[in-house]
Amino acid sequence: MTGVLISFEGIEGCGKSTQARLLADTLRAQGHEVLAVREPGGSVLAEKIRALLLDPANTAMTPMAELLLYEAARAQLVAEIVRPALDRGMIVVCDRFYDSTTAYQGVGRGLANVDFTMLNRLATGGIVPDLTVLLDVPVETGLRRAKGDTAGDRMEREPVEFHDRVRRGFQTIAAAERERVRQLDGLRAREELAAEIAALAAEAIEFRRGPGAR
Amino acid sequence: MTGVLISFEGIEGCGKSTQARLLADTLRAQGHEVLAVREPGGSVLAEKIRALLLDPANTAMTPMAELLLYEAARAQLVAEIVRPALDRGMIVVCDRFYDSTTAYQGVGRGLANVDFTMLNRLATGGIVPDLTVLLDVPVETGLRRAKGDTAGDRMEREPVEFHDRVRRGFQTIAAAERERVRQLDGLRAREELAAEIAALAAEAIEFRRGPGAR
Repeated sequence: MTGVLISFEGIEGCGKSTQARLLADTLRAQGHEVLAVREPGGSVLAEKIRALLLDPANTAMTPMAELLLYEAARAQLVAEIVRPALDRGMIVVCDRFYDSTTAYQGVGRGLANVDFTMLNRLATGGIVPDLTVLLDVPVETGLRRAKGDTAGDRMEREPVEFHDRVRRGFQTIAAAERERVRQLDGLRAREELAAEIAALAAEAIEFRRGPGAR
Repeated sequence: MTGVLISFEGIEGCGKSTQARLLADTLRAQGHEVLAVREPGGSVLAEKIRALLLDPANTAMTPMAELLLYEAARAQLVAEIVRPALDRGMIVVCDRFYDSTTAYQGVGRGLANVDFTMLNRLATGGIVPDLTVLLDVPVETGLRRAKGDTAGDRMEREPVEFHDRVRRGFQTIAAAERERVRQLDGLRAREELAAEIAALAAEAIEFRRGPGAR
């Protein structure tokens, strides 16, 4: 069995964590072996790095340190968890992957003179998702959903303009890689979205494993 | 006044922390404004990253995650602490800097297909020490000094062969950059070493600031 990697991307509150969970459930119900992980995090060490990244107390964090911490968490997750699962033939559903770094640190923070393709490749060892689902929502809606009544984590506390740049960053990636990245309207009804994503996933799995394979 | 950066390098237990402290004391006694920092660490966030890097509990840490965590700590230290101090004209004495990454992660871990020059430059923003003091000691001596009666931190627990590679890595850097990196025998008497290092530092400061400047 060949491993399949499906990532979910989008700004805070776009619904990707919910849809990632629904897809994992659907695939398991279909009999697939599924591993669901989130980024940053997904392993003991990577979750410790996540805690640093999202702690609002770390106000002094520079954009470059932030970028390198995200890549460190990713390198750990991929080598320790994702690649072994893919090698065992599992379907890995990832809540955020390297497109988030390009959108948040590249476009959002505006880090110049950084080769994001090269850094992402160092962290992933060259793994590319078979399918990336981008859920697009207006920033105000997303932030309202994500933060609820709280002040939000370190990233959620960034101003609306930052999240606007990130949203446009994701849209640019989707436009540049139409085959891999499927942009969907995150405001659509949850079940309707889930059905469309399940169909896209089935297509990606069949494309990777060949027709008729499960 | 022009800032001056002096770094100390070498394997565990080579005496660099002691000599860095002695040099900082000497320079202060001469009337210089001195900032002494250590790597990884030296800022609140960077010390949190240091804790991850040296905690023996993090046995699953992959070489790539380790590399990126060191670079993240460095990026934070340089942007938050070192560069502002240099801009104010201070002398910054750094216990480890980017040569440690080349020696430990490049030669010690043997990470291939990584452009260490580029990664170090991302983290430092292009800062290069005016003087780097490499204290060279045999691995057995260094590890005995560093660990004492303890089991050692995560790096100190690596086998002797690892530290042998790191030592050779440092020697290779010193041979390639004779102007910047001065290799000294770390087994020499402490006060004698301190005097020679103070002379090298005075030379580097005069070279940077011009003759007669303090």
